[in-house]
Amino acid sequence: MTVTIVGLGLIGGSAARDLARTGLASVQIGVESDPDHLRTARQLGLIDRELALAEAVTAADLVILAIPVDAILRILPDVLDRITDRQTVVDMGSTKQMIVDAVRNHPRRARFVAAHPMAGTEDTGPAASREHLFASRIAILCDTADSAPDALATAERLFTTGLGMRLIRMDAARHDLNAAYVSHLPHILSYALALTTLAQERDDPSLFSLAAGGFTSTARLAKSDPAMWEPILKQNRHNLLAALGAYQEHIATLTKAIADDDPARIRALITEANRIRAFMA
Amino acid sequence: MTVTIVGLGLIGGSAARDLARTGLASVQIGVESDPDHLRTARQLGLIDRELALAEAVTAADLVILAIPVDAILRILPDVLDRITDRQTVVDMGSTKQMIVDAVRNHPRRARFVAAHPMAGTEDTGPAASREHLFASRIAILCDTADSAPDALATAERLFTTGLGMRLIRMDAARHDLNAAYVSHLPHILSYALALTTLAQERDDPSLFSLAAGGFTSTARLAKSDPAMWEPILKQNRHNLLAALGAYQEHIATLTKAIADDDPARIRALITEANRIRAFMA
Repeated sequence: MTVTIVGLGLIGGSAARDLARTGLASVQIGVESDPDHLRTARQLGLIDRELALAEAVTAADLVILAIPVDAILRILPDVLDRITDRQTVVDMGSTKQMIVDAVRNHPRRARFVAAHPMAGTEDTGPAASREHLFASRIAILCDTADSAPDALATAERLFTTGLGMRLIRMDAARHDLNAAYVSHLPHILSYALALTTLAQERDDPSLFSLAAGGFTSTARLAKSDPAMWEPILKQNRHNLLAALGAYQEHIATLTKAIADDDPARIRALITEANRIRAFMA
Repeated sequence: MTVTIVGLGLIGGSAARDLARTGLASVQIGVESDPDHLRTARQLGLIDRELALAEAVTAADLVILAIPVDAILRILPDVLDRITDRQTVVDMGSTKQMIVDAVRNHPRRARFVAAHPMAGTEDTGPAASREHLFASRIAILCDTADSAPDALATAERLFTTGLGMRLIRMDAARHDLNAAYVSHLPHILSYALALTTLAQERDDPSLFSLAAGGFTSTARLAKSDPAMWEPILKQNRHNLLAALGAYQEHIATLTKAIADDDPARIRALITEANRIRAFMA
């Protein structure tokens, strides 16, 4: 089938690589507003051709929106305006509630499948794209009762056959709440760690000479791009503020145990935190 | 030379592997109080023989203390009591000030080199040990003016020739301040993330199905062992409380920008945090 990928960054570019490799896409059309990204995507051979959005949507069996969530909100209604009942639109945004709300009453709502592939890195742009980025990871499909069965089947083929993912269905509201805790909150704490250490580095330029694997893994997400992340934080702000409130309480509890010089309490808190092993690979 | 390794966990066990491989140790003696760890270390062939602490210290050219920092504080004076001026003692603890203070006036102080190899994982015990754990990482040597030149030379051989590390010298006070920001603080924020998400998981058992690479990297350190970490947090509590205070302010600033629905402020904070790229591999 002909697949149009809107946004040839890390996610769109990586999808393009896998869809070509697995043969799910016979023709790949790219839509990319950033001239540098478009040039890189061409050089990397990620797409067969580029078109403007309107033409690219018309030409596709499947349209994939791999752009920041504010851009998804803005263009999704227009994309649905342009399609027929034989085409499918899938988004890959990190928030879901505002996006499904934006097209709730659209006449072509059933052609849309709201999705979130749980994969990515802290890097952006087509140069960061890679094969197998999605392999064996989870793709969340939201509010699937609002999608037509054939559109849903196409989306499922995209994520399973095309990208090698496993599927979970979940309400958009529940997705957004969970994503606040396990994806959006980790970004905030990593940004805060970066801000804290960068300020300290002004006092002692040797600070980062001590940074080892522990710092690298907790600060990695602080490299993440504002153009992608600011809209996510905005669209999921109510859930994220709840998660941040809970997180700040746990930080305060740990801080108090350290300030009180209370080894038994510290050991109990660490032992409880260690239970996370059961939920991690 | 004959090397005694006190503590055959992740760090001591990994050092044993490298010292055997690089030939720096002709004989390796192990001291391990945990019978399970000792059995595993034997099965893995990490040591040539085991001895009680007193005999193991007497027999060694070089004694490596790879035990929790509370145990280092407790046994270091005894170890120095037992050695001659031809032996060297090196510790590998994550705090340095309290350890150097504990032996500041010891008659054999000059035989001791206070060190912190910046390497490790979230796992513990000899089964977690591996070759090349230390390769190309930084080893901090503290207050080196208080060590005899030949003891310092032996420590330098251990970390460079034996373990493949690069050396940095630094005051113990400065080490502890820096370690608070780039090593101990990241552990606290990871413990807090684990506690926050584990509490949320009670409301929704599907929570961790959404956990992907971002969660894994920020929550990884929350697997770290209380027996190792509680004493580190205790010994470095003043620096750590300063780091935690600064961190809590940055979390509050980010939270306020999100609560205020202020995209320009959020983008500015993320852009500033992105500067961390310059300090990360």
